[in-house]
Amino acid sequence: MATITLVTGGARSGKSSFAQQMAEGKSERPVYLATARIWDEDFAQRVRRHQADRDQRWENVEEEKQLSKHDFSGKVVLMDCVTLWLTNFFHDCSYQLDEALEAAKAEWQQFIQQDMDLIVVTNELGMGVHPENEMARKFADLQGWMNQHIAAQADTVYLMVSGIPVKIK
Amino acid sequence: MATITLVTGGARSGKSSFAQQMAEGKSERPVYLATARIWDEDFAQRVRRHQADRDQRWENVEEEKQLSKHDFSGKVVLMDCVTLWLTNFFHDCSYQLDEALEAAKAEWQQFIQQDMDLIVVTNELGMGVHPENEMARKFADLQGWMNQHIAAQADTVYLMVSGIPVKIK
Amino acid sequence: MATITLVTGGARSGKSSFAQQMAEGKSERPVYLATARIWDEDFAQRVRRHQADRDQRWENVEEEKQLSKHDFSGKVVLMDCVTLWLTNFFHDCSYQLDEALEAAKAEWQQFIQQDMDLIVVTNELGMGVHPENEMARKFADLQGWMNQHIAAQADTVYLMVSGIPVKIK
Repeated sequence: MATITLVTGGARSGKSSFAQQMAEGKSERPVYLATARIWDEDFAQRVRRHQADRDQRWENVEEEKQLSKHDFSGKVVLMDCVTLWLTNFFHDCSYQLDEALEAAKAEWQQFIQQDMDLIVVTNELGMGVHPENEMARKFADLQGWMNQHIAAQADTVYLMVSGIPVKIK
Repeated sequence: MATITLVTGGARSGKSSFAQQMAEGKSERPVYLATARIWDEDFAQRVRRHQADRDQRWENVEEEKQLSKHDFSGKVVLMDCVTLWLTNFFHDCSYQLDEALEAAKAEWQQFIQQDMDLIVVTNELGMGVHPENEMARKFADLQGWMNQHIAAQADTVYLMVSGIPVKIK
Repeated sequence: MATITLVTGGARSGKSSFAQQMAEGKSERPVYLATARIWDEDFAQRVRRHQADRDQRWENVEEEKQLSKHDFSGKVVLMDCVTLWLTNFFHDCSYQLDEALEAAKAEWQQFIQQDMDLIVVTNELGMGVHPENEMARKFADLQGWMNQHIAAQADTVYLMVSGIPVKIK
């Protein structure tokens, strides 16, 4: 089974940088597990910015959904991030909330069977006003339920606030 | 006077589940004080989901606004939630912020005179981008001010993050 | 160099009140450094509300951008707030994110050279759903990066939740 550290927080709260430093402190050769599907230039820019932040020590794996098909045994793995990974399930399930949540949880359960040191980055999406857009509301539900699921399994959880890690579990 | 425990957090952060477990741990016969006005199918589904989560031990009270007219003396009461309750004042005051806040605070003051063990669920709405919609901005103000008012009176306050209760008072 | 206390949190979380009490506790004659450009009646009302909350002991300074041109040596200064100050840079840089961030950081660096006891109020904007509006997304990025920058330099950081200060650094 994986040892799990969850790093959650708002947009631009320093989640990825903190998680990267943690992974680099734990291994000479950490794995960067990127879950982004490149939807548009805005995403592409963000991906490039993050890649530029990382040094050459990293092993890069790109995987939009099927995390469990890669062998991470004995490795330190940084999954960045749950939100992009869930977006792919949500899209491919035609925006059906229950179906996407079930599929994502099943894949997750397979994934964490591996003996790895897993650091997971996710987003807090629920502390703003209730979105008017129904799809945004559904996605926020999906994100929130998955976050609860992962946090319950995690050994350690950090909430990032303005770049400061607050250990909450 | 009531003993007050406030449980705040974002949407889908596990507030209601945590508050329910707390109430069940405190009493054989807790009261579920539901403040929802059933506005649409989305709300109705959420209410049904929450009802299904609760077992038969609960006494159910539905009250949109006048919490103080019920007798809760000596009971453990879970009010779920402040946001829906405030929505009813906001609507019935024709979306006048100051009027709604004054009316809600007056009713609240009456309510908490009772000797009960009160657990209150509310929402953090203010940590997203400033909403473009003026009414949403006003409601976020109303919610924020009422949250401050209740938290100041509360004996204990928890912030829920990804299902994890963080005790902040 | 300035001693820096950062007070962050959502809208209506009690940031300004808490910061004012702190400044009043530290000095007989604190400086209120207001960064608002008065854009509309909504802002004007908020400014008036905050002014009414402050007593006569305060020295008031209004400065939209060039904080460093005022002499604050030896004083207790409450800057309220980073968000409004950044908005002015963002606007005057024609909404170019990188340019605004660079200009704001340069001005900030000048400002904090002074020997003052600086209390800074800012906003958490990133914990809601990803905004659909591109400019709102850019501004949230700007805010988040500046918050990280200030928090890294700060001696003390508080997150306000429902009026409760949570010390996180």
